[in-house]
Parts: sequence; structure tokens; C-alpha cells
Amino acid sequence: MVEVRSKFDLDDERVVVPVDVAIETATGILEHSGCRPARARSIAEHLCDASLCGVESHGLMRLIQYVEQFESGYMHPGSEPELKRNERGVVWIDGHGGHGIPAMNLAVEVACAEASGRGASVLAIRNVGHTGRLGAFTESVADRGHLCIVLGGGNRSAWRQVAPHGGRKAMLPTNPYSIALPGGERGPVVLDFATARIAGGWIYAARDAGGRLPDDVLMDADGCATTDPEDYFRGGAILPAAGAKGYALALVAEVMAEAMLGPATTEANWLMITVDTSRYQQAPVMRCIAEEILSELRSCPAMPGFERVEIPGEREREHRERARRSGVAVPRETWSKLLGLARRQADGKSPAGGRNISGAPDGRMMDR
Amino acid sequence: MVEVRSKFDLDDERVVVPVDVAIETATGILEHSGCRPARARSIAEHLCDASLCGVESHGLMRLIQYVEQFESGYMHPGSEPELKRNERGVVWIDGHGGHGIPAMNLAVEVACAEASGRGASVLAIRNVGHTGRLGAFTESVADRGHLCIVLGGGNRSAWRQVAPHGGRKAMLPTNPYSIALPGGERGPVVLDFATARIAGGWIYAARDAGGRLPDDVLMDADGCATTDPEDYFRGGAILPAAGAKGYALALVAEVMAEAMLGPATTEANWLMITVDTSRYQQAPVMRCIAEEILSELRSCPAMPGFERVEIPGEREREHRERARRSGVAVPRETWSKLLGLARRQADGKSPAGGRNISGAPDGRMMDR
Repeated sequence: MVEVRSKFDLDDERVVVPVDVAIETATGILEHSGCRPARARSIAEHLCDASLCGVESHGLMRLIQYVEQFESGYMHPGSEPELKRNERGVVWIDGHGGHGIPAMNLAVEVACAEASGRGASVLAIRNVGHTGRLGAFTESVADRGHLCIVLGGGNRSAWRQVAPHGGRKAMLPTNPYSIALPGGERGPVVLDFATARIAGGWIYAARDAGGRLPDDVLMDADGCATTDPEDYFRGGAILPAAGAKGYALALVAEVMAEAMLGPATTEANWLMITVDTSRYQQAPVMRCIAEEILSELRSCPAMPGFERVEIPGEREREHRERARRSGVAVPRETWSKLLGLARRQADGKSPAGGRNISGAPDGRMMDR
Repeated sequence: MVEVRSKFDLDDERVVVPVDVAIETATGILEHSGCRPARARSIAEHLCDASLCGVESHGLMRLIQYVEQFESGYMHPGSEPELKRNERGVVWIDGHGGHGIPAMNLAVEVACAEASGRGASVLAIRNVGHTGRLGAFTESVADRGHLCIVLGGGNRSAWRQVAPHGGRKAMLPTNPYSIALPGGERGPVVLDFATARIAGGWIYAARDAGGRLPDDVLMDADGCATTDPEDYFRGGAILPAAGAKGYALALVAEVMAEAMLGPATTEANWLMITVDTSRYQQAPVMRCIAEEILSELRSCPAMPGFERVEIPGEREREHRERARRSGVAVPRETWSKLLGLARRQADGKSPAGGRNISGAPDGRMMDR
């Protein structure tokens, strides 16, 4: 078995699937759901990469959710993202209610071109469904020499997951932030986090796998700490990261995305801010100074319970390098659900077979 | 006595000083230290406002540190910030080694003009000393209809205060972030936080006042939790906010500020990113939607131990409104130090009188 770092304790085993098989399977499922071939492949590659990076919550398990969301009309599989300019001269990307990954891939291209040409770019991305692993996009922008900041939110009416600091009711989404910039010899520094103590996906992943969560991330409906993922679905809430700080980050993203860019018609609205670092510092000099900073941190003595101090972004890249040789580790139950889905599609049946595969109850949608 | 919310338990009393007396006293001290009158007044007004807002760690107590830093040559009192353009067309502000508050005030003006004219602005601020309370600047930009993001760092060689996540040695500064944008009827939403569990200033404030700190913010030299501010000066460290998340924010700011903008010649380098929200949404519509979001959050039932859910930025504004009527509350010891300082200056003696007023030991400078 390949060891996968994961935020939940998994009792069941994982299967290791060759990368090309995983991508082909995922592409086939998405094409059968109505995605155009190139879009299906780009989504499949993104998910497979997230699984390879060890970010299981944003990996291949998401396919089941996406297929349900295509079936229910929540996202439109055939939509193509489009670059637009509003009447006040602002450039933005309209996802036309489609999947967020192709829209974000387009945003990366536009942002890099604008930043290279003009020094900076501010780009809104609207009318999109789930955007996958944000760090993949900011890292890709940083790989080309830019600082990239992405924040988004705006749909708390459908995604009340997180309690505000000092509150005992789930009211906000997990509104994530990602920031990346060129780093040292080992590539960009990549920050990518939910403003809640955990990304919502981990709750579904834990429930799906029959696991439990750490003891300081969830509250039940009475405001008491709990480790049982089911308590979340019974009126509980995720706590904000660092109390007032994570709450403030989530709220800023919510106001930005709904009041400034909104309404968030599909899932969330996003702002991607890109700055060309080479206008300030030549790339080799920046790499050299960054490497000095990062290697100093890598040499910091570890706290008891930790192996070492890590650089954000490096764990995912190291995981990908190791996993690529053996294959993608997928929880056995997830993989068998995906194969069943592919089989039903091939038989010409409704992909979900009329069942709610993800098991999200009473209109509370599969998590972001 | 006026009640001041503060992160440390203060045994001593506070005195309440009329606002104009506080500003005049502070202006006089800064002028005697070599600041030009207009600059002295702008710094004094900023500090007095921070004290009025209840942000004591960034209020009038900072004067003592500033005077020492002017005396030691760390900051130049007579410097004027200057707008420059580099050979690659990038506009930036050179603080010429002077105080950061006048440089940030200039940045606010330039950023607002650029964002209003072109939709967005990216502005580097370099060669500056302490910049005061960041939220004051981002709020001022947001008051004029813009989204404003400020991050900075870059001088860990002098400011090793915070342990990286998983490490047990102070290696990074508390590199703060501030983000503000137009809000509802009660003004902008203002995020302003250190990426450490507490801003370093609280440690000095607690020690200065003979108080103790909460039990989950500091580690001693052995990596054990402690509430004694003195342990910080004996080789301890502040913990990063939210573990890996606060650490990642601090590291991104450090790499940005030193490798991209650096070196940080005086204290820290800063990036101010400003986006005109009116290019996306008309101001009255944005205010109306923001107010809906914010009033919903204000109505969230409180957790045990909390009075209510707050909107970031409102506590400071409410505090200022209340305090303005009665005066600025200043710890008695701080105020008597300031009066003594003013007296010695009037007598023509060295302001610090040859003593290390702030009491920072063995070259570890007064905190940011």
C-alpha cells in the first residue's frame, strides 16, 4: 500500500491505480456526463493530480459529486468559459454555469499574459461550479514568475458550513485562500487553505470512509466539540481557523465575492490577483534569496511530534513525485463507486442510477 | 476609568487623557526627536487614533520605541517618503529609512488615485520603519470604495519572533496582513492581524504592565507552553496562528518582501494591492448586499462566553466613538514615561537620558 497522509483515520484500504488508467476512467465518466472531450480531460487530469499530491479531499473522489451536480442541473457539463469585458472596462471570466476547473485554467492563462504584459492583472471569475484544488492554479502562475493571490466565496445561502467567531451556528462557507510565488530551488511557495479549521471535504471523506475527525475542528448543534462527522449533518458547524482571524478572512471573501462580484449564481465567485515579480527583482536573484530563506527554515529544529519544518507546497510536490511512479492511491470504496458509475454509464443508464451516491442528506449538497 | 479591551491582564490603572493633549504631547516629542512638524503630527494622530480604537499595542506606547529608534539611527526622523519609478516601469514608495506611517499615508493617496483612474494599483513600500496600525490604512482606502490588501515582512534577521509550524525556534517576524473593503451601513470590513497567535507588541505591553499572557500563544526555550512574557526574552517564541496556516501566510510575506522587494533595509517591505470595487458593482448596490450579509452575521446566536458575533473593524470604530468623548485611555506607567520624556527633551537632554527606556534586553529590539 502507498501511504497517504490524510486528515481522517481510514480503516479501509486504498487501491493503487496507474495514472493513465485513473485519467482515462475519469475522462470517460465526465464525457458520458456531457463534458466536451478536452474539458473532460482537463478536469480528470486536475483531479488525478490532486490525488497524486495527497490532497484526497480534492482528488478523484470529487467525480461522484460532479456527476451528481451535472445531473441535477447545478452545473452545466457542456459550458465553455468565456473571457468578457464589462461596460466599465473590467476583464472577467464567465463560467456560464459550468465546471470551475476549465474556467480557472483559462484564468491562469489570461492572468499570466496580462501580468507579463502590464506588470499586474486583476481578474474576476464568475458563474462557475467547483474549482478543484486552488493551489494547483496559483502554483502554475507562480511557476511562470508571478505572485498570485486567489480568494473567493459568495454563496453562503447554499453552503452554511462554518460558525463565525463567537457564534454557534454555521453561517459561512469555508471560503479558501491560495497565494503562491516563486520560491527557491525546489519551486514555488504555495499557500492553499480553507478559512475553517478543516476544508469541508474532509468531513465527507471521513464519513465516506467511516472515520473520525480531530477533536478541535467541529461543534455539534449545541455548540459542543465533537469528532463524529455525522454531528455536522445534524446541525453542527466547523470552527473558523484561528478564531477571529479565519472568520475575518472568510467574511472578507464572502463580501468581496457576493457584494462586489455577485451574485454567485452557480457556486462561488473568485478574484485572481497576479503581479509580475520580475518587475521588482530578476528571477535568478529572487530564487537565490528565496532559497536562503527556505533552507534556513528547513533547518529549524522540530517540535516534539513533528519530523521537520516543511515549506508550504513542497509536501504536495514530493508526494506527487513519489506517487507518480507507483500510481494514484484511491480509497477502495471510492474507486469501486467510480467503476460502478462508469459501468452504468456504458450500459446507457442514468449515471447515478437514481440513487444519491454521495449520500448527502436533505438538500445539503455534497461539500465543496 | 474607561474600560479598555486588551490582550493582557493589567493590574495597574489607566489614565484618561484628552485627545488634543495626547496629540500635542506626542507631536512635541516627535518634533524634538527631529521629525518635521507635519510628519510629527501625522504620526501622533495615527498613534492616538490606535489608542482610541482600543488597539493599545499600536497606540501611544509606541512613541517610546520610536524615539529610541530615532536616537539609535535605526530610523531617520527627518526623512520624507518619495514616489519613485524603477527602470522596469514599476511605481513604488521609498521611505528613505524614515518612519513608516508617513510612507503608508502617501501610499494610501497614490493607491486610491491609481485605482480610481485605472481600476487597480499595485504599490511597493520600501525602506521604512514601523508602519503603525495597518488596518487604519486599508480602512481609509476602503472608505473611498476600494478593496485593499496589504502584506509585508522581510526582516527576519532582526525580528525572529515566531516559530515555524512544527519548529521550536523563533525564526520569522509576526508578518501581518490587512484587508479591507467597503461594507454596509456601518462602514468597511477591516481584517488586520498578525500571522502569529498574538502581535509581538502584546508581549512588551504585558511585560511593561507586569501582566501575563493567555496560555496558548507562547513557548519557552524548551518548546513548552508558558504565560510569562519574560520567557519570550529567554529564547522563547510565539506560536504561529492556526499552525500551518499562519506560518504559510508569514512565509509568503517574508519571501515576497525580501526576495521580491528586498532587501528590507530599515524594518519591513510592503505590498499594497488596491482594486476599485465600483468597476464591478455600483457603490449603493454593494453597500446594500454587504449590509445584508453583515446584519445576518450580527444576528447569529453567541457561543457561551461570547456576548455577540462581531464584524471585523466595528469594534475599533465603536471603541473610538465612545472613547473620543472621554479621552484616550493610556496605561498610567506609559503616560508617565511619555511625560518624563517630554520633560527631558524640553530640558535639552538626550530624550532617553542614556537609559534604555523600553527595557528591551541584549540587542533584541523593541517589538513591531
